[in-house]
Amino acid sequence: MEIYSATRGLYPHVSVDCVIFGFDGQALKVLLMSRRDEAHNSGYNDYKFPGSLVYANEDLDTAAVRAAHDITGLRDLRLRQFRTFGAPDRASSPRDKRWLENATRQQVGRIVTVGYLTLIKMGEEVRSFGEDYNVAWFDVGDSTVQLAFDHPLILAEALREIRRQVASRPAVVFDLLPPKFTARELRAAYSAIFSRTYDVRNFNKKFIENEPLIVALDEKERNVKHRAARYLRFDRKAYARQLTIDS
Amino acid sequence: MEIYSATRGLYPHVSVDCVIFGFDGQALKVLLMSRRDEAHNSGYNDYKFPGSLVYANEDLDTAAVRAAHDITGLRDLRLRQFRTFGAPDRASSPRDKRWLENATRQQVGRIVTVGYLTLIKMGEEVRSFGEDYNVAWFDVGDSTVQLAFDHPLILAEALREIRRQVASRPAVVFDLLPPKFTARELRAAYSAIFSRTYDVRNFNKKFIENEPLIVALDEKERNVKHRAARYLRFDRKAYARQLTIDS
Repeated sequence: MEIYSATRGLYPHVSVDCVIFGFDGQALKVLLMSRRDEAHNSGYNDYKFPGSLVYANEDLDTAAVRAAHDITGLRDLRLRQFRTFGAPDRASSPRDKRWLENATRQQVGRIVTVGYLTLIKMGEEVRSFGEDYNVAWFDVGDSTVQLAFDHPLILAEALREIRRQVASRPAVVFDLLPPKFTARELRAAYSAIFSRTYDVRNFNKKFIENEPLIVALDEKERNVKHRAARYLRFDRKAYARQLTIDS
Repeated sequence: MEIYSATRGLYPHVSVDCVIFGFDGQALKVLLMSRRDEAHNSGYNDYKFPGSLVYANEDLDTAAVRAAHDITGLRDLRLRQFRTFGAPDRASSPRDKRWLENATRQQVGRIVTVGYLTLIKMGEEVRSFGEDYNVAWFDVGDSTVQLAFDHPLILAEALREIRRQVASRPAVVFDLLPPKFTARELRAAYSAIFSRTYDVRNFNKKFIENEPLIVALDEKERNVKHRAARYLRFDRKAYARQLTIDS
């Protein structure tokens, strides 16, 4: 499969890389593309973020959306820039260089990459990918996954940025949950994102009782083995009003 | 004056630009470098952010610190990346192209620039610059200043980012004030950053009375014409503890 269009000139100095985090109700996952070097029989199979060099006439944001869509099939991702990575040697290992030159059919020198980020709720439709796509979800903490280029650094920075966003604007978390959720489900999201456990009582006090935008519903869980928990709801309308007043 | 070292190779595809905001107690200022094209007598004198192409063997953060220091003389700026700008035509107007090729002594094509940002308290030592430096402070809202390249966009995005940071982490504001400050001084900082006026009573309620980390001191202003106001203090120790607990 040709990655790049033969009719569009490349700008071989700058690329985009898309860190797509997903939450499936239990774990924080990240979408990775497998990188096989079949031509050289060197026997490696490592992974990278969906990404691409930018075309000569292409804006960065456009390149990120294009690369994410071409590689994963996903549309309407709200990809946001979070950091640009430019260590002079970040793509210069022999393996990285060979892979790049094979993909681009040209010599490649230093590449600065612009990191994009999104965090999505993994509904059924994005839990797995067909054979058309060379990508799969991995647990963020999966230490058996070998990442190419400087992608371990990009992953670490992306994770830090997501945690920063959730800490300063908790509303992000509610996009990962169903409209009606339990305290347990909210705690699972925080546990996955911050990779830690919480004391139940402290968690409920800090993130639920002290959060005026969380409304307890009359309805409880049904048909569960544990004690049925009350459903909660995040008051998006009040949140939107608050943002308007603040700005 | 030669801007670039003749002995270090340039990487002419990527640059850094540093948006240095300053607060002088009254207005939000930004540090700009004047761009004169004396060789061509074209009679323009516009402005740009302190910045530079990166050298071939140079990291992005290093380039930002180097450029800011070389151009302004300022050291120890906490410059942070905030966004990368890469519209294909962002540096391709005839004036921009000529200026770049004159400065670099080489042909220059598309340049992607990585934006860096900082906000400093303008003490006496940074209120003006000597003749060694081609830079000066301007009011952020000064509509008579013409900015080169896509720097109007960079300024707008930097301002948005600073406002976002202050809104989500108000502690940033207290770095701009003396250790003991009045409600009026705090309001002046918010007014300057958000470019708006505040109703005094609403401001005090929202930003002072509702902020447990602001401590009212026994001491009042002296020798002032208006009614002497009580001094306030931001409890940095409690703030640091809170950050530790949150993380």
